Amino acid sequence: MSPVTRDQVHNFAAGPSPLPTVVLEEAAKGLLNYNNTGMGICELSHRGKEFKKIVEDAEANLRTLLAIPDTHAVLFTQGGGTQQFASVFVNLLNSHRLKTASKGSQADEVPTVDYVVTGSWSSKAAAEAKRLAIPTDPKTQSPLAEVNIAATTKSVGFNTLPRSDAYSFSSNPAYVYYCENETINGVQFPTDEGSPFAFPFDKIPADVPIVADYSSSFISRPIRNIERHAVIYAGAQKNLGPSGVTVVIVRKDLLVDTTAIAKEYGRVPIVPIAQEYKTLADNGSLYNTPPTFPIYVSALVLEFLLNKRGGITGVEQVNQRKAQKLYAALEAAEEKNVLKCKVQEKDARSWMNVTFEVTGGGEKEAEFLKQADERGFKQIKGHRSIGGE
Amino acid sequence: MSPVTRDQVHNFAAGPSPLPTVVLEEAAKGLLNYNNTGMGICELSHRGKEFKKIVEDAEANLRTLLAIPDTHAVLFTQGGGTQQFASVFVNLLNSHRLKTASKGSQADEVPTVDYVVTGSWSSKAAAEAKRLAIPTDPKTQSPLAEVNIAATTKSVGFNTLPRSDAYSFSSNPAYVYYCENETINGVQFPTDEGSPFAFPFDKIPADVPIVADYSSSFISRPIRNIERHAVIYAGAQKNLGPSGVTVVIVRKDLLVDTTAIAKEYGRVPIVPIAQEYKTLADNGSLYNTPPTFPIYVSALVLEFLLNKRGGITGVEQVNQRKAQKLYAALEAAEEKNVLKCKVQEKDARSWMNVTFEVTGGGEKEAEFLKQADERGFKQIKGHRSIGGE
Repeated sequence: MSPVTRDQVHNFAAGPSPLPTVVLEEAAKGLLNYNNTGMGICELSHRGKEFKKIVEDAEANLRTLLAIPDTHAVLFTQGGGTQQFASVFVNLLNSHRLKTASKGSQADEVPTVDYVVTGSWSSKAAAEAKRLAIPTDPKTQSPLAEVNIAATTKSVGFNTLPRSDAYSFSSNPAYVYYCENETINGVQFPTDEGSPFAFPFDKIPADVPIVADYSSSFISRPIRNIERHAVIYAGAQKNLGPSGVTVVIVRKDLLVDTTAIAKEYGRVPIVPIAQEYKTLADNGSLYNTPPTFPIYVSALVLEFLLNKRGGITGVEQVNQRKAQKLYAALEAAEEKNVLKCKVQEKDARSWMNVTFEVTGGGEKEAEFLKQADERGFKQIKGHRSIGGE
Repeated sequence: MSPVTRDQVHNFAAGPSPLPTVVLEEAAKGLLNYNNTGMGICELSHRGKEFKKIVEDAEANLRTLLAIPDTHAVLFTQGGGTQQFASVFVNLLNSHRLKTASKGSQADEVPTVDYVVTGSWSSKAAAEAKRLAIPTDPKTQSPLAEVNIAATTKSVGFNTLPRSDAYSFSSNPAYVYYCENETINGVQFPTDEGSPFAFPFDKIPADVPIVADYSSSFISRPIRNIERHAVIYAGAQKNLGPSGVTVVIVRKDLLVDTTAIAKEYGRVPIVPIAQEYKTLADNGSLYNTPPTFPIYVSALVLEFLLNKRGGITGVEQVNQRKAQKLYAALEAAEEKNVLKCKVQEKDARSWMNVTFEVTGGGEKEAEFLKQADERGFKQIKGHRSIGGE
C-alpha cells in the first residue's frame, strides 16, 4: 500500500474524529519534550506545576469559549458518555434525595427521572438509569427511581425529533435528560427557539435540573441556554481531543456528599468515589491520576479554536457552512434518486452527523463506498449498529 | 530557561513515569499519520480494522510477557486504580452472591471481604469497599459486606510488611485483596517464597478469589502465582504507557451478569454497566469508546519489551540491577547520616519506589532537591501526601 499523506484524506470518522494538524504537530513535540523540560507530557506528574497549568488553562479557555457561568464547575474525568449515563443518575438522585429530605417528604416516595429519547444514545442512558434503580433488596423495596420517557421518536425509527406538544414531563422529576445530538440517527436539537423541534426549556419548572449529553456536538457551536442546565457532559473524541477524557459541566449547588446522604437518608444508588462530582470538583479534577495526554491535546485544541478560529462564533460559521454544503450535495443526489437523507425534517438535522443511505443498498452501497475511498473520503461508513464500523 | 534535552534528564516520576524514547518517537509519527493511512492514531475509529488489531496485538503481547493463562480474560478499561477499588468490590460481590445463592445460603448472611492493608493505596481500597457496602436502606438493612482487615502495618507507619504469621483471614470471604507494591510507602511483596514477608497464598483456601493491585509494579518483573489470582489490575502510567488506560486481568468464571443477579437475588451493590467485567469482556474492551492513544502507546511499549528488552526476564534483570544500585547508594549515604531509607527491612523494599528521607529535613531537604535538580534528577520529591507533588 503506498503511503497516504494527511492532505490526501477527508476523514469523516464520527468519533474518534479528526484533529487540527497544527495541534497534532505541537502534541508530537510535547510527547518527547514538553516545553523544553527534557521530559515528555506523558512523563510528567499530574500534580506538577506544568500539568496543573495545562488543566487550569484548559478550564479557563473552555469557560471563555462556551461562556460557562461561574455557577457551574468544570470537571475533567474518564469513562466517556457511557460512564456519565451512570454518573448523572447516581449523583443527581443523591442531590434530589437531599432536597426532598430537607422538605420532609416521605422516604418511600419514589422519585421520577424524565428521559427524552431521540436515538441510540438517549435510549442507552434511559436503560442505564432503569438498571441502576434496582434497590439492594428488590423483593421488598420499590425501585430507587421510576424512569419516565417524557417524549420519544422511537416509533418512527428516530428519524426526526419530537414536536414541542409531544412532551409529557413528570410533576416533580429529579431531573430531565436529553441528548442534544444523536450521532447514529443524525438528529440534533436546533438552536432556533422558534423551531417546532426546539428543546422545550419553557415547559420545565425552573427548579427541575436539566441534563444534556453533548458528546457528539460539544464545542461545535454555542450551547443553547447553557445556564439553564444542571449538567452538560461530553466525551472529548468528537471535536475536543483524543478519546479518554470526558468533560462535565455541573451546577455547583448540585455537588453533594453522596456517602453522607446514603448513610443519613438511604434510598439512593451508591456512587463509586471517582464518579462523585463533588470529589472531582473538590480536587480540581486531580483526585486520582487523570488521562494527561488527552487533556493536554484538548487544551491545545481549545487554544487553537480561541486564537486561530475566532472562538465559538467562528467555529459555528465553519460548521454551518460545511453542513449546508453537504446537505445541498445530498439533496441533489436525492433528486437523482442516488442517495437518501435519513432525516427528512430539515430543522431536526444534525450539523455534525449527516446520515444518508445509498438508494438500492447492497452492491450499490459497496460501490459507493469504494469510489468514496478512492477519492480520499475515509471512514464514511456509519456506526456498526447500522452496518458500519 | 534554556532548553533541556531528554538525555540530560533522569526522570524519577513515580507516575506518570518515563517511557522509552524510541516508543515516543514512533508514537509521535503515529499521532500525525498512523501506518501511512493519512490519518493519525487519535483520528481512527476504535472499531476500524487498524485499531482492532492494535488492541488484539496488545493483548497477545501482554499474555506472552506475563504468561497469562487462558483461564483469564484481559480487559483494557478506564479510571485507574481508584475506579478499580469500586469495580473489584461490586463485581466480586456479585460473583460471590451467585455462588452462595446456588448453594442455598440465606439472603441475610453478610459476606466478608478481606483486605491486607500495607499502605496508602490498600487503605483507600478498603475504605471504598466499606463505603460501597452501604445498602439502599441503611436503617433496616445490614451492610452488603463486612470489611475485615486481615493484616495491616498501619501501627508502624506502613514502613514494613506483615510477617506470614500476622494474617487473620475470614473463614469464607468473598475475596482477599492486597496491593503488591505501595508507591508512597515503598514496600513491595517479595517474589521469594521463602521470605518472611512473602504474600501467604498457602493460607488462603483454593476457592477464595485473590485480588491484587499491581498498578505501581506492573510488568516490572514476573507476577508471582499469577494463575492463583482472580483479578489483577493496573493503571498503565507506571511502566506500561500513558495515564488513561487500566488493564484488568480477570478469571473468566467470575464474569457474571450483575443485572440478573441484582434482580434475582438482591443484596449486591449495583455496577455501572461500563464497569461490569462481563460487559467489557463480551465486547473485547470495545463496549464504549476506549482511550485509543494510551492503548496504542502501551501496545508499542509491550512490543518493545518483548522484542528489544528480552521479555519479562530481561526487564526483571534491569529493574533488579537498578534497585540494587540505588539502595547501595542510599545505604552508603545512610552510614554517613545524610539520608535514611524509609523501609529498613530489606526483604520488604520496593524495586519500583525507593523511598528515603533527607536527615535533618527542612533546609537540608530543600538543598538536596535543588542539587539533585541541577544534576538532572527530576521529579524526585515524593507524593503530595508526604510533601511532594
